[in-house]
Amino acid sequence: MNPLELSPADFRRLADRLSTLAEQWLTELDARAIAPATTGAASEALFAEGLPEEGLKDAALDALGPVIAGTRAGNARFLGYVLGSGEPVGALGDYLAGVLNQNVTAWRSAPTLVSMERAVVRGLAAAVGCPGFTGSLTGGGSSANLMGLTMAREAKAPANEEGSPTGVVYASTEVHMSIPKALALLGLGRRNLRLISTDEEWRMRPELLERAITEDLSAGRRPLAVVATAGSVNTGAVDPLKDVAAIARRHGLWMHVDGAYGALAALAVPERFEGLALADSLSMDAHKWLYQPVDCGVLLFRDAAAARRAFSFSGDYVRSMSTDAVESFAFFEESLELSRRARALKPWLSVRYHGLRAFREAIRKDLENARRLAELVRAEPRLELLAPVPLSAVCFRYVAGLPEAERNAFNTKLLARLNARGRVYLSNATLSGNFVLRACFVNHRTTPEDVQMVVAEVLAAAAELTHAGTVSL
Amino acid sequence: MNPLELSPADFRRLADRLSTLAEQWLTELDARAIAPATTGAASEALFAEGLPEEGLKDAALDALGPVIAGTRAGNARFLGYVLGSGEPVGALGDYLAGVLNQNVTAWRSAPTLVSMERAVVRGLAAAVGCPGFTGSLTGGGSSANLMGLTMAREAKAPANEEGSPTGVVYASTEVHMSIPKALALLGLGRRNLRLISTDEEWRMRPELLERAITEDLSAGRRPLAVVATAGSVNTGAVDPLKDVAAIARRHGLWMHVDGAYGALAALAVPERFEGLALADSLSMDAHKWLYQPVDCGVLLFRDAAAARRAFSFSGDYVRSMSTDAVESFAFFEESLELSRRARALKPWLSVRYHGLRAFREAIRKDLENARRLAELVRAEPRLELLAPVPLSAVCFRYVAGLPEAERNAFNTKLLARLNARGRVYLSNATLSGNFVLRACFVNHRTTPEDVQMVVAEVLAAAAELTHAGTVSL
Repeated sequence: MNPLELSPADFRRLADRLSTLAEQWLTELDARAIAPATTGAASEALFAEGLPEEGLKDAALDALGPVIAGTRAGNARFLGYVLGSGEPVGALGDYLAGVLNQNVTAWRSAPTLVSMERAVVRGLAAAVGCPGFTGSLTGGGSSANLMGLTMAREAKAPANEEGSPTGVVYASTEVHMSIPKALALLGLGRRNLRLISTDEEWRMRPELLERAITEDLSAGRRPLAVVATAGSVNTGAVDPLKDVAAIARRHGLWMHVDGAYGALAALAVPERFEGLALADSLSMDAHKWLYQPVDCGVLLFRDAAAARRAFSFSGDYVRSMSTDAVESFAFFEESLELSRRARALKPWLSVRYHGLRAFREAIRKDLENARRLAELVRAEPRLELLAPVPLSAVCFRYVAGLPEAERNAFNTKLLARLNARGRVYLSNATLSGNFVLRACFVNHRTTPEDVQMVVAEVLAAAAELTHAGTVSL
Repeated sequence: MNPLELSPADFRRLADRLSTLAEQWLTELDARAIAPATTGAASEALFAEGLPEEGLKDAALDALGPVIAGTRAGNARFLGYVLGSGEPVGALGDYLAGVLNQNVTAWRSAPTLVSMERAVVRGLAAAVGCPGFTGSLTGGGSSANLMGLTMAREAKAPANEEGSPTGVVYASTEVHMSIPKALALLGLGRRNLRLISTDEEWRMRPELLERAITEDLSAGRRPLAVVATAGSVNTGAVDPLKDVAAIARRHGLWMHVDGAYGALAALAVPERFEGLALADSLSMDAHKWLYQPVDCGVLLFRDAAAARRAFSFSGDYVRSMSTDAVESFAFFEESLELSRRARALKPWLSVRYHGLRAFREAIRKDLENARRLAELVRAEPRLELLAPVPLSAVCFRYVAGLPEAERNAFNTKLLARLNARGRVYLSNATLSGNFVLRACFVNHRTTPEDVQMVVAEVLAAAAELTHAGTVSL
């Protein structure tokens, strides 16, 4: 018998233990400290013994206790990083994906699961107002943005064969870091990303985009693509998609929309995303505003032939022998990836269980919670709201009694203190040189009471700092 | 109450249903037809209704029956595509990753799970004879190879900032398709991949590598990197790593080893991978020869600073505020990815449960099964072995009574017939223009009896074809 053989009964016993841990995690989530009380040294020490030569059998699972104790509780008051709240039915999709272990790369390698992913992608495209778009699920927005720009480069200035690509890409100053990272990787160079200034609501100014393109054309450079942001990571700003698309079209540029954070809100407030369907490619993260467990990114595109021009390069051993359009379909011809897990099981199970209507309503509640926090901040003289709230990101800071020159340092320490208190978790952003606290609502567990606690905890953390008479932590 | 709210009790009920499906899947695996009896039209029809507006609640899971019925059974006789057999304890890692929903991108976002991934990577590096290497888990070998070559490009001919990269990469003619795909993506151009001929055992010929580099240097071109293959996807050939490394070092080239399929066999037969530790970067897939459920790739590298030079580009909102070496650690500074799921839970749970010794033994059994099949093929006059078997890939074809000109067409149809019979699943390769059947053993469920059935089934499928008097299917 193979030493890795595991009887179905043994599997079931272990699975039941995991389910008990999972149930306990969900039950205690709200009561747990969001930021675990651990240190770098302590978390490294948990794994100091390395991978064991002899198996521990069931005792192997005992170590999960301290591992879980040292993780962040994604409860109702975790509002950091634009990370979705992890809808648990979706997590069961991850479970099944692991058990079935199908390589969802071509219809012939995983027939029904390939069809499922195609259906989920089509369904999400239709739900955000982009019917007819196809695409695939990705590890996240970074991969989806990289793939969108790969398609743009190959469509506008092909370099797959000859190399040495050149060209210019445009985006607003609020662009996500994955875009310059993609330009670097694609050999276009970060210096060929033109950052277009934004208006008072942090949206790209189309007239400046037009001017930048014209200048580059005059200088003999080759404009390739514009990246419009549909929900900036700092403030949730949505670029004027229709205007940007018109400029892109006029100059023959590819239009990629980075909707990783925001675009799925089109399920609830489609009117805020007018022009989304004018994109050539669009990224959006189901592990953000569709509440799915990470990872579940989505890349949509208008023209699958453009994806194949960018990504198709088949070895013999993966060549299909079918002529049927479905049976010869292969995600790897339209993607960076070859081996691919069944990511679609998460959104498919989760959306079927709850229905799209429940997701629309959950997104609406996030939008309301963000508005509610903005109002509480405006009503509280010790706090200052630093940006409009077009979606669900709220940027603010503590200002009471602080000279302008001390505000950044104080709020930096305030954030650390706030998160260490363990009741609320925020992250940070920099707006016009100001360090701000950022709460982002992509969390189906958050209630109006939790929103009130954000303000109460920020004020309590500030009081700790000022009362201590020192800002050292 | 939020419409997505799910009580822990409801979760547990659904989880138990999933566990029952999982247990049933594992119990019936051996009896199931490997290739499901479905068609493109039938599998698409399962999802024709799209994503429902109203939730189906528990009934949502009813549709899993037909989905599972239409998947491939990864049982003892699934020997296609170099896809690992999916060790079920690893699948429970996927389950927990989904439930905990941690973003394993920086220590502060998921302390213990970041430490776990660092430990798993270190442990696997040590286990394959590359102690001191660090790295990260990836979606698969394609991503890991892309990341290795990204590091190579940035180390030898930096282009992240300015773009327009140029340079030449070398690999054997047996190189995996992900390498030319990576050159295309990186803007180096597929034409700048030099394919070096192999010896009679499909290994790169070092003297031809040396010659190619010299020629490129003479022509004023810039050699960047050599990709050595440690386990070619067709025949399992391992390039002469020491010789290749010496040439790379002499000319200042980066050495990337594509060990996606083979390198983890160094757990069992380290002597076949002499020189592995001379690599600058190394990819290997735990979802292949460590039997983990897809996806679980590994990228190892010698110098983390080279990874950061290639990938670091941080936005403010992800900037760490810690000075502790562990607490400020971020995978996203050394990787393509930003959001990352807890892939390490799979190998960590699985290896702790079974122990490294069990994996070494399972790999040895795969090697034996491959040798066994090769011997059976050699002993069977109707079959022909087309390549040596240095690891666990076996390439052969049916030849009895077939003129040379008909062998490719016949074996193409034979493979389709064989797989449609549903008892054994092989894939294909092309060797020197010959279409061959390829069995690849990375399967802890395969027994010597299963190996015998491979031969019996191939002969039975051939008999069906020849007996029918026609080769139409």
